[in-house]
Amino acid sequence: MRNTIAFSLTLVVLLGASLTATDASQEEQLRKFIEAKAAKRFTNRPSANGPEETDPWADPSSFSDLPTRCQGPFEGSKAADKIVALPGQPPRVNFDQYSGYVTVSKEFGRELFYYFVESPYDAPSKPLLLWLNGGPGCSSLGYGAMKELGPFRVNLDGKTLSRNKHAWNNLANVIFLESPAGVGFSYASNNSNNNNNVGDRRTAEDAFVFLQKWLERFPEYKGRDFYIAGESYGGHYVPQLATVIKFMNELHGTPFINLRGIFVGNPYLDDYKNGKGFVEFLWNHGVFSDEVWAGILANCTFSPSDDWQCFVATHASQKGNIDLYNIYAPICLQSYYGTYHSSSYLAGYDPCIDHYTETYLNNLEVQAALHARINTSWSGCTDLGYNDGPVSVVPTIKKLVEHGLSVWLYSGDMDSVCSITATRYSVKDLNLPITKPWDPWYTPDSEVGGYVQQYEGGFTFASVRGAGHLVPSYQPKRALVLLYSFLKGMLPPADIPN
Amino acid sequence: MRNTIAFSLTLVVLLGASLTATDASQEEQLRKFIEAKAAKRFTNRPSANGPEETDPWADPSSFSDLPTRCQGPFEGSKAADKIVALPGQPPRVNFDQYSGYVTVSKEFGRELFYYFVESPYDAPSKPLLLWLNGGPGCSSLGYGAMKELGPFRVNLDGKTLSRNKHAWNNLANVIFLESPAGVGFSYASNNSNNNNNVGDRRTAEDAFVFLQKWLERFPEYKGRDFYIAGESYGGHYVPQLATVIKFMNELHGTPFINLRGIFVGNPYLDDYKNGKGFVEFLWNHGVFSDEVWAGILANCTFSPSDDWQCFVATHASQKGNIDLYNIYAPICLQSYYGTYHSSSYLAGYDPCIDHYTETYLNNLEVQAALHARINTSWSGCTDLGYNDGPVSVVPTIKKLVEHGLSVWLYSGDMDSVCSITATRYSVKDLNLPITKPWDPWYTPDSEVGGYVQQYEGGFTFASVRGAGHLVPSYQPKRALVLLYSFLKGMLPPADIPN
Repeated sequence: MRNTIAFSLTLVVLLGASLTATDASQEEQLRKFIEAKAAKRFTNRPSANGPEETDPWADPSSFSDLPTRCQGPFEGSKAADKIVALPGQPPRVNFDQYSGYVTVSKEFGRELFYYFVESPYDAPSKPLLLWLNGGPGCSSLGYGAMKELGPFRVNLDGKTLSRNKHAWNNLANVIFLESPAGVGFSYASNNSNNNNNVGDRRTAEDAFVFLQKWLERFPEYKGRDFYIAGESYGGHYVPQLATVIKFMNELHGTPFINLRGIFVGNPYLDDYKNGKGFVEFLWNHGVFSDEVWAGILANCTFSPSDDWQCFVATHASQKGNIDLYNIYAPICLQSYYGTYHSSSYLAGYDPCIDHYTETYLNNLEVQAALHARINTSWSGCTDLGYNDGPVSVVPTIKKLVEHGLSVWLYSGDMDSVCSITATRYSVKDLNLPITKPWDPWYTPDSEVGGYVQQYEGGFTFASVRGAGHLVPSYQPKRALVLLYSFLKGMLPPADIPN
Repeated sequence: MRNTIAFSLTLVVLLGASLTATDASQEEQLRKFIEAKAAKRFTNRPSANGPEETDPWADPSSFSDLPTRCQGPFEGSKAADKIVALPGQPPRVNFDQYSGYVTVSKEFGRELFYYFVESPYDAPSKPLLLWLNGGPGCSSLGYGAMKELGPFRVNLDGKTLSRNKHAWNNLANVIFLESPAGVGFSYASNNSNNNNNVGDRRTAEDAFVFLQKWLERFPEYKGRDFYIAGESYGGHYVPQLATVIKFMNELHGTPFINLRGIFVGNPYLDDYKNGKGFVEFLWNHGVFSDEVWAGILANCTFSPSDDWQCFVATHASQKGNIDLYNIYAPICLQSYYGTYHSSSYLAGYDPCIDHYTETYLNNLEVQAALHARINTSWSGCTDLGYNDGPVSVVPTIKKLVEHGLSVWLYSGDMDSVCSITATRYSVKDLNLPITKPWDPWYTPDSEVGGYVQQYEGGFTFASVRGAGHLVPSYQPKRALVLLYSFLKGMLPPADIPN
């Protein structure tokens, strides 16, 4: 007993640095979640070889209560959701924008907020793509839309927007969903009743209901080629939502949602493989010393049997003030006067953009233009008390591949948190024969955009060279080339273009 | 016998890509040298466990024929070497520049060319630093001075220069030596007589004679604190020259050359460790696949016993058109019209600069201003038929540390060719106890400049974060902070400055 108390205290001290972070940015959120989950796993670990976790996503009948068609009358309308203009938006915006709420649980008052941008070029011929950021608890509006692949970036005045010329709505009509309820502008009005089951299951089910109802509001998108993309903890959300859609299509015949594929960047896939890949990546990139690494190798197996010595060994290093989500990126520094500035310069990337985005989205005029609840205190990430998620989504992904879905994973190779090393371990666990070996792929400006390998069933794993966790932020051009290839169902160019 | 022929043919095919490169840039030169040396080692490998190489640098008496004081009258003078102005140099150049030849062998007509820049700030109080680029066969003028740490960079017109505000002559008086004879503007007028012993030994001895004579021409630098810095194959040149100086100082009493330390970046140290570190680095950074890596692990020991299977395994990958000296850097592309352009943008770095430099240094006016042989066809690298160099310089470095010299190695962590991984293996071989463990160090703008570890005897190994092989090209600020710390004999700041 005394040992347990001593352990808990030490654990708090060791985890302190990440748990006391006041700024709940996406950069902190996933790390906090992973650390907390590891601590929980550690304290609750089986005394001997406990039973293996069963796959909670393997049983189709468990979803049979979900609605297949929503019954009218439907709340909300496309016309009401149309955004006249976002405050501070640049001139000549040549595409339509919509945003608003979709009720996913009347009983508990769960309302999911979305932001939808159509393609400026021939929208009716283009597919529909749903984008999901991770955390869990981080906003697809604040991250995906405003910092990564959306049509605008918030300028440093926190009031005006500029165009992102590599926005993904060049290629698709994109929905950014703030998910689950409680994230960003999404909310649950009767929160006390349902905190106990905040987790992967309800997130996927709510997102499914959202899609059903959204398609009633935008009926021209019913049956359109549909893709789900996301990143980070989206490594759970995306394959799980795809699983629900697949089951529901099977249960009820004709596909109402024409799901064609999933495209997930720097995914969080497996608790143990991710932990192993994290420390290995840091060692291989010169962040850990050989000595720290030797300690980890001597004490860790990256399985439930890991004990206190492994925990100590993995926390024995001093990483310094670097962005673990892109170990080479500049960082955002706060001055004594409270202003923010970038520590150095990287073309097109501002590490302080989260602050401008938060300012912008908390402007009442902006909230009104977005049809969001006025006076929402919007923040990029929220602590949800998230408590349901399998140790690994590899079995879920494997079933999607076997089912014939186009499944692509990609990795920005400068991210340590969901590192290429970790993703490789999980890809290996899929145990699929290789059909096209690891080769460079090229962008139109003759850069090696990354490397790509293809497997039986079409499963594809690609790297994006020189990108961190938020691939479209760091390498917008390369990300767009890869998306283009994914949507075309072909590998990106294997040679310098002529 | 048939096997040997088949082997040789295959070897030529496998090596083809690198051996047929027409542009002998530093980016190609070392790779070519390493490949050729590996092929030679492989064909000449001992049938069983052959005798271990003896350390050719361990015997002081072998240098006793070298002159300690040069006998007058001396050729050349400081005044004659003074550069009035370099064509196209920017206004307000506030330091003195010198260049010219020093005869290192009258018999064979070997003339070494140097370019010397004094510090703009209180030059008499500042140390003297000799910079040596590698190759072997590459120019310290074209690379070190014009592309890395010198006071000027050639602009893309090939005619004008701009200031490098992070030039190392902010902190020291810097000599760039084109070494050995045959490199850049250095030459041997009677070349046919002495090609057989082009190698480490003669390079070090000639550099030593150069220094002796140069100090007669610049007598105010006699006894000044003296440092040798360099990079790449300079990992051989620098510790070897230091060894000659140390031996000569011991043999002849009072130090004429007041050698205080050496500072070597991305050094080529050990044939086997470098090969191992190269492939491991590429695998760890997502350039090799897991499958290629598995083939290497199954077939290679990185020792003389490696056979054909290892050779095949290490050549089984397709790296694509990336700069192996900075796997994340933009590359230089040639258009159909013969012009060059950068594939993408990296603040302050132009991958095409070699071309402008070559144009500039082949301008007759520039050659005249530099007191170089007019009509020299200057090129960045030269094939020297280099044929003497130990398998490892680790024993040489170890002796310098034991002798009390300040020895620092540093590694730009994006270089694959002399990777941080390889250097770590060689540092481990020094077998020195750690006194200060691996920790981040900071630049004045609060960036993690890299990591640093110190060992008994003061030996220091530092990384420079986000830099490739040419550290001062990619991370000029971080390189300057590290040089400052080295010259001060203290570790760089361990915290964000307040």
